[in-house]
Amino acid sequence: MNEECGIFGVWGHESAARVTYFGLHNLQHRGQEGAGIVSNEEGYLHGYRGLGLLSEVFSNEKRLDKLRGDGAIGHVRYATSGNGHVDNIQPFLFRFYDSQVSLAHNGNLTNAKTLRRELEEEGAIFHSSSDTEILMHLIRKSTKETFLDRLKESLNLVKGGFAYILMTEDAIYAALDPNGFRPLSIGQMKNKAYVVASETCALEAIGATFVRDVQPGEVVIINDKGLTIDVFTTQTQPAICSMEYIYFARPDSNIAGVNVHTARKNMGRNLAKEAPIEADMVIGVPNSSLSAASGYAEYSGIPYELGLVKNQYVGRTFIQPTQELREQGVRMKLSAVRGVVEGKRVILVDDSIVRGTTSRRIVQLLKEAGAKEVHLRIASPPLKFPCFYGIDIKTRKELIAADLSIDEMNARFGSDSLAFLSEDGLIRAIGLTFDAPYTGLCMSYFNGDYPTPLYDYEDEYQASLKDRKSNF
Amino acid sequence: MNEECGIFGVWGHESAARVTYFGLHNLQHRGQEGAGIVSNEEGYLHGYRGLGLLSEVFSNEKRLDKLRGDGAIGHVRYATSGNGHVDNIQPFLFRFYDSQVSLAHNGNLTNAKTLRRELEEEGAIFHSSSDTEILMHLIRKSTKETFLDRLKESLNLVKGGFAYILMTEDAIYAALDPNGFRPLSIGQMKNKAYVVASETCALEAIGATFVRDVQPGEVVIINDKGLTIDVFTTQTQPAICSMEYIYFARPDSNIAGVNVHTARKNMGRNLAKEAPIEADMVIGVPNSSLSAASGYAEYSGIPYELGLVKNQYVGRTFIQPTQELREQGVRMKLSAVRGVVEGKRVILVDDSIVRGTTSRRIVQLLKEAGAKEVHLRIASPPLKFPCFYGIDIKTRKELIAADLSIDEMNARFGSDSLAFLSEDGLIRAIGLTFDAPYTGLCMSYFNGDYPTPLYDYEDEYQASLKDRKSNF
Amino acid sequence: MNEECGIFGVWGHESAARVTYFGLHNLQHRGQEGAGIVSNEEGYLHGYRGLGLLSEVFSNEKRLDKLRGDGAIGHVRYATSGNGHVDNIQPFLFRFYDSQVSLAHNGNLTNAKTLRRELEEEGAIFHSSSDTEILMHLIRKSTKETFLDRLKESLNLVKGGFAYILMTEDAIYAALDPNGFRPLSIGQMKNKAYVVASETCALEAIGATFVRDVQPGEVVIINDKGLTIDVFTTQTQPAICSMEYIYFARPDSNIAGVNVHTARKNMGRNLAKEAPIEADMVIGVPNSSLSAASGYAEYSGIPYELGLVKNQYVGRTFIQPTQELREQGVRMKLSAVRGVVEGKRVILVDDSIVRGTTSRRIVQLLKEAGAKEVHLRIASPPLKFPCFYGIDIKTRKELIAADLSIDEMNARFGSDSLAFLSEDGLIRAIGLTFDAPYTGLCMSYFNGDYPTPLYDYEDEYQASLKDRKSNF
Amino acid sequence: MNEECGIFGVWGHESAARVTYFGLHNLQHRGQEGAGIVSNEEGYLHGYRGLGLLSEVFSNEKRLDKLRGDGAIGHVRYATSGNGHVDNIQPFLFRFYDSQVSLAHNGNLTNAKTLRRELEEEGAIFHSSSDTEILMHLIRKSTKETFLDRLKESLNLVKGGFAYILMTEDAIYAALDPNGFRPLSIGQMKNKAYVVASETCALEAIGATFVRDVQPGEVVIINDKGLTIDVFTTQTQPAICSMEYIYFARPDSNIAGVNVHTARKNMGRNLAKEAPIEADMVIGVPNSSLSAASGYAEYSGIPYELGLVKNQYVGRTFIQPTQELREQGVRMKLSAVRGVVEGKRVILVDDSIVRGTTSRRIVQLLKEAGAKEVHLRIASPPLKFPCFYGIDIKTRKELIAADLSIDEMNARFGSDSLAFLSEDGLIRAIGLTFDAPYTGLCMSYFNGDYPTPLYDYEDEYQASLKDRKSNF
Repeated sequence: MNEECGIFGVWGHESAARVTYFGLHNLQHRGQEGAGIVSNEEGYLHGYRGLGLLSEVFSNEKRLDKLRGDGAIGHVRYATSGNGHVDNIQPFLFRFYDSQVSLAHNGNLTNAKTLRRELEEEGAIFHSSSDTEILMHLIRKSTKETFLDRLKESLNLVKGGFAYILMTEDAIYAALDPNGFRPLSIGQMKNKAYVVASETCALEAIGATFVRDVQPGEVVIINDKGLTIDVFTTQTQPAICSMEYIYFARPDSNIAGVNVHTARKNMGRNLAKEAPIEADMVIGVPNSSLSAASGYAEYSGIPYELGLVKNQYVGRTFIQPTQELREQGVRMKLSAVRGVVEGKRVILVDDSIVRGTTSRRIVQLLKEAGAKEVHLRIASPPLKFPCFYGIDIKTRKELIAADLSIDEMNARFGSDSLAFLSEDGLIRAIGLTFDAPYTGLCMSYFNGDYPTPLYDYEDEYQASLKDRKSNF
Repeated sequence: MNEECGIFGVWGHESAARVTYFGLHNLQHRGQEGAGIVSNEEGYLHGYRGLGLLSEVFSNEKRLDKLRGDGAIGHVRYATSGNGHVDNIQPFLFRFYDSQVSLAHNGNLTNAKTLRRELEEEGAIFHSSSDTEILMHLIRKSTKETFLDRLKESLNLVKGGFAYILMTEDAIYAALDPNGFRPLSIGQMKNKAYVVASETCALEAIGATFVRDVQPGEVVIINDKGLTIDVFTTQTQPAICSMEYIYFARPDSNIAGVNVHTARKNMGRNLAKEAPIEADMVIGVPNSSLSAASGYAEYSGIPYELGLVKNQYVGRTFIQPTQELREQGVRMKLSAVRGVVEGKRVILVDDSIVRGTTSRRIVQLLKEAGAKEVHLRIASPPLKFPCFYGIDIKTRKELIAADLSIDEMNARFGSDSLAFLSEDGLIRAIGLTFDAPYTGLCMSYFNGDYPTPLYDYEDEYQASLKDRKSNF
Repeated sequence: MNEECGIFGVWGHESAARVTYFGLHNLQHRGQEGAGIVSNEEGYLHGYRGLGLLSEVFSNEKRLDKLRGDGAIGHVRYATSGNGHVDNIQPFLFRFYDSQVSLAHNGNLTNAKTLRRELEEEGAIFHSSSDTEILMHLIRKSTKETFLDRLKESLNLVKGGFAYILMTEDAIYAALDPNGFRPLSIGQMKNKAYVVASETCALEAIGATFVRDVQPGEVVIINDKGLTIDVFTTQTQPAICSMEYIYFARPDSNIAGVNVHTARKNMGRNLAKEAPIEADMVIGVPNSSLSAASGYAEYSGIPYELGLVKNQYVGRTFIQPTQELREQGVRMKLSAVRGVVEGKRVILVDDSIVRGTTSRRIVQLLKEAGAKEVHLRIASPPLKFPCFYGIDIKTRKELIAADLSIDEMNARFGSDSLAFLSEDGLIRAIGLTFDAPYTGLCMSYFNGDYPTPLYDYEDEYQASLKDRKSNF
Repeated sequence: MNEECGIFGVWGHESAARVTYFGLHNLQHRGQEGAGIVSNEEGYLHGYRGLGLLSEVFSNEKRLDKLRGDGAIGHVRYATSGNGHVDNIQPFLFRFYDSQVSLAHNGNLTNAKTLRRELEEEGAIFHSSSDTEILMHLIRKSTKETFLDRLKESLNLVKGGFAYILMTEDAIYAALDPNGFRPLSIGQMKNKAYVVASETCALEAIGATFVRDVQPGEVVIINDKGLTIDVFTTQTQPAICSMEYIYFARPDSNIAGVNVHTARKNMGRNLAKEAPIEADMVIGVPNSSLSAASGYAEYSGIPYELGLVKNQYVGRTFIQPTQELREQGVRMKLSAVRGVVEGKRVILVDDSIVRGTTSRRIVQLLKEAGAKEVHLRIASPPLKFPCFYGIDIKTRKELIAADLSIDEMNARFGSDSLAFLSEDGLIRAIGLTFDAPYTGLCMSYFNGDYPTPLYDYEDEYQASLKDRKSNF
């Protein structure tokens, strides 16, 4: 399961590219495929981008030093199957005869295919397969007078989930879609420079104070005069991606004022309330489920133990066990702690289930290490529907809960019992206070209730509802 | 603070080098500077070693494939300041006119300097600066008839802390010093092949069953006939390095039958008993102190929270904040979770304190994130004396607790209170049942009571006791 | 002095990408900054490109294996100061909603700036700073019905020097500008597959038979039906870049039926006829001047000797002598052979002089090695004017012969005499038999007689004629 | 065919390691497998060595900068099949309790096996498979008082071919075997620092003046007092490896006062005299045979042409043509110049023939490019016997001329005629004036007359004389 990206921008700091580097560093969990930074040196934009982790792309410090200037924007991109092409790595940098613009994007447009086709029919040429270029074409086609007006016009043409950061010769612009699917926050550094970032943990990384979140439908302008808030539409309805709270965001980030760790802990507490079971210990799947597991333990009064250990050096290991070794029990990423679980009844808390292969493997691991019982508790509702706003689940075929009942899944995983958090339990755990119907959260993966029309995806989606999968 | 190494051996498996790779993979936390594997193909030894993580040294799978044969031993070496020389990377591989021997070592000899000088005076030539070659020279100089007898004679000449694994043309030998400072365990794979490894987590990694620990003074022989236990001395006194339990070993390992996570949790519980304080939450320093922190929380009934987040991608970042950015609060490795700690009274549990710089920084981090009070609780006694058996603390100058009182340290760190676990609390937390005086544990870093003469280090040690440091 | 590129294409071979790799391999001398290949797998285009030598870009054989299909085009790009951006590396690959097109280019357009501005004013967005994208925009804007007609229309809009290779879903197209500034040849492989390549040495590399050169104004179509020749204009006037014969092309290539080594040898012979001098030996600057030097030696009867040796391992040496070492005579690329030149009168043959710094250094080298006299003979006329058709000399400021007389240059270089080949001597050495005025050769760098209007460069060029440089 | 190594040393230069780098740079042709430098900073030795070209080992300039001090020695090692081990890379650096010594070696000992076994029986341990360590053991075992006396005693115990450079805390020592098989020359830099190097081309590289060759049996001492010449034996008989003149050395080097290019040109002239043939042109195999070919052309009056072109970028290409492509004529390293050779009678001059596979391939290449006749002329006598003094031909099985007659070889190669230079023609071409029987040259590969006993190789050699090979 992949999140599209992390984005960052700063204006008014003499080491703008370096500040961006450290901001992106704390957004690295949002994307590991590629990274890039564009800086603004008195109106001239310098850029560098490459494949790999931020620290790999900028392993040579000179790369960073060449990105001179007081403004900068940056981007980290998620890891796909690794097509190894640099074309999609952002920020994009456009040099026109009359201006320079750089652009970074987090999200997914639902009308990209249509817009792209329309633009191509008018002669536009795209260089990447990402949606991101579309906004640039729309801006260039706009006949409005100012860049801001052209941008606002264009933002009303793109649909779906988007958080954009743009940099021109004299300003940074940040914009959020009318539902605010993706998080985007504003901070201020000690020297008064304003920054925008996908998550507040990036503000903490650079010692910046939180100012406010960018709101759905807003365009924020940061330039030498400071911070200005504008809107491109007032027809907004907050629907923050609930998977940000459940899985993607770092636990030290706050989204819409809610701390992610606290939300996760509450998910665990609510899960303990909804699906209690007698056992000797609570165990979380490292690292993303540790908060929920500790919430479950705290509410239930059952001790929280370290029953699974993650190998922190696994990241770049290309050598895999042979089939023969796999059968002999060789494994690399997770170890069950025999000394802890042997002969014990275990509650295993995980944050969510996509394909179910990991759940099955971990239950087996614990049983092999001697666990007497393994009760699987999932701190979110069953994932049954695809996402079109920026999470890379485009088809129901990848979702086991779209196909199997809870009992069927329990049998498949080999667990002794299985329960999911209810939708209501999730909503209360996060505790947003926006208006109905969405009360601020997008829960479409759980209930198929999408806050926007699906445009280009509508047909595909309707077809998928009729499929009965066979791959589980 | 650095541990010397991790070692591993297997005999009787058709993919011996690959098994060793996966075993070492789970020992990577014991050393990141370099790695190597030597295999035995029907009596001919193949070897490969290099600088970097195991996955870097063997990034090309062909390297591993060339290490054919049914037996193999391997080694991971700790990270020093990075002199970048491959000479010290093990296992060493010696080809003599009459035999081949490979050798891997974890530990530190206390009479290495004397032995080396004596050997050099007799014409010996050393290629590395490590102690490890010494054993090979002693074996070659021995006039005993069999390799085993020559090895046993030599093991009686080296003093200090050592766990050795050797491989000859027809067997693997593993030996442990008379105090058993370093852990060393025997396991058996599903195909009956025997393995030896520094920690039991390496046995789990390859699906091997735990057989028994190697005992102090033992030499274990593994060959085509199976496993044989012999002894090179009966004058033994178990004194397992207590820092293995406190800090070095992986929480999923068992040492002398005691699970490391459980021991750490008990340390936390005992600490809560000995040094209680009223507060809103308990926080552990990730990742090594999380077990102790959860023990403290459980005993005290104060909620355990995620108040600090570690950036998991930090490993290879060479770009550091400038002084200017550092002053503006830019940081890279640890973040305090403002949403959790703001306005709260925090108990911060850490496993140990060496120089104290990290403790100071973390207290500051929490205060900057709004923590109202920070009470520092250390889940081990104050480190006051150097180690000569394999942990890289050779001088008291690096130990803040050798210099400052607890009150002085509290002032230095900026914490609101500071307490350490007592020696007795540590001993009971681990719960070994060996005889007095050491009851199975080496506690010399805490009390200066070394289980062996210090030989070459004696003078230096006595001098250090007179020093009053000035660098804190 | 840099040539823009080498291009290659093949249609109808089951290992098309691999054939392209080996073809480009023999074109590597035309560009070392970057390389790329696009293949055609039953209508779907796969591409890969990167910075560095071809062998570096494809150091991982899997990269090449993924480029499946029966058609492929490729490109090597010249080395500039190394801005390190992959954006300009070709072939470009465009995926439209209705088609896919790949494009590779060798040459320089004289009306690129104007076209680009016009296109941008109509909304076009460019991603690279190269001229190459322009053709793609023109094709997409054309309203002609077939791709071939759109291409032909577009080829009439771009001016200057160009050799293009394009690949669509079902064909390869190759086109040459109306003057034929750049070489481009057609060959046929043993399996009947047609290939196009910048030089015939690439045909030899893959065992292909020479078919014919692409003629100025032609578009060649290669598809499943075989080879078709078409024209986009009949207003042509052959003017092959004479620097291809003098310096750029490999000596084993034939251009317009003339072998490059033979042409160079004739230049040397004619030079010996025009500028004889008594001496003990003839020496060539390795490697490009060896043919001319042997021609000079043969005609003059003076022995040809190896008086200069080039270090073949110098390529990637980043470590340079310090100023102190440079003053002590430390050098890396060329060595004078003291044992050959000491006490001798030397005729030093070089192919051409741009800035003159190399000439000066070599004369000095020979004198330091004991040469009694050094007579410099240049096997081409003085370079006095910039090139706008694909060689990277855009300003007269870089050309010493635009500023200094022959006597002044001789004094500057420290040589004992200096002579250049005459324009007539050059023309006769190559021996093309096209009509006047150009008789098939572009000699504009020597005489300022450009075969086409200069368009965007006209003003700049006129201004440069008035400059008297000061940097020599 | 591989030469063992290149060695270099300098004493008394503030940038000693950098001088050594540039000296080794011009010796890179003598070895590409690995490189290393050891420097002397006021008695403390720093070292660094690694696999690959010198420029790769020191690609990070900091590596070089750390090698501080006024003295340095260095080494480049030949390329074998690439076992990828750094253990054999030199200079070796030994740190004893009482001193430090570094050691670099070029050559091959004939009694290494015996010495090594004797030393091992006395307890010595070797770390590499090279002969080089042996000298260090002998020096340490010597009971003489001074280092120089111990060195001289040891030099009398090792037999075969050797050029050594050693560095201690206060001096550099260079020594050459009693036959002087390997070249070794002394130079002096502009600042008066003395240098020693395998070839004079390394002296030229650093602007040093040639002082004299090291003579067989000499030990040269360079320290703060300057240069001292001593001898370790007076029983010497000069027998310089004739393959140095024929193939290994750079053409710009002088060996024993004879320029290598000039010697090669004379070989070509003598060959033309001994084996004339009517033809249209003379062609040399690039790069090593160009001098001989130009000599043949000059003497015969037949024009010297560029009929073969070597791809200068081939070095690091790992991608090879498939069998299918190979059959279609795809090739990578050498191209025949069709425009030159088509329809012509060609004399092809090569320096020597080892296995004959290259000769066969080149003849075929020329025929495919249309050459009417190809007359192969080899500028050295047939190689029939192995070398034990430093060239990596240890068995007659690799030598086609040991197995086949000239007529048989001519048939095998597909050439129209084949002739070799006579032994006498070779000796006169080099023109050394030492006494009989060897007149200064080792010709053993041609006639089996070895200037020394073969010691450990004797049995193997006698056996090989009886073999009739089957692999040609």
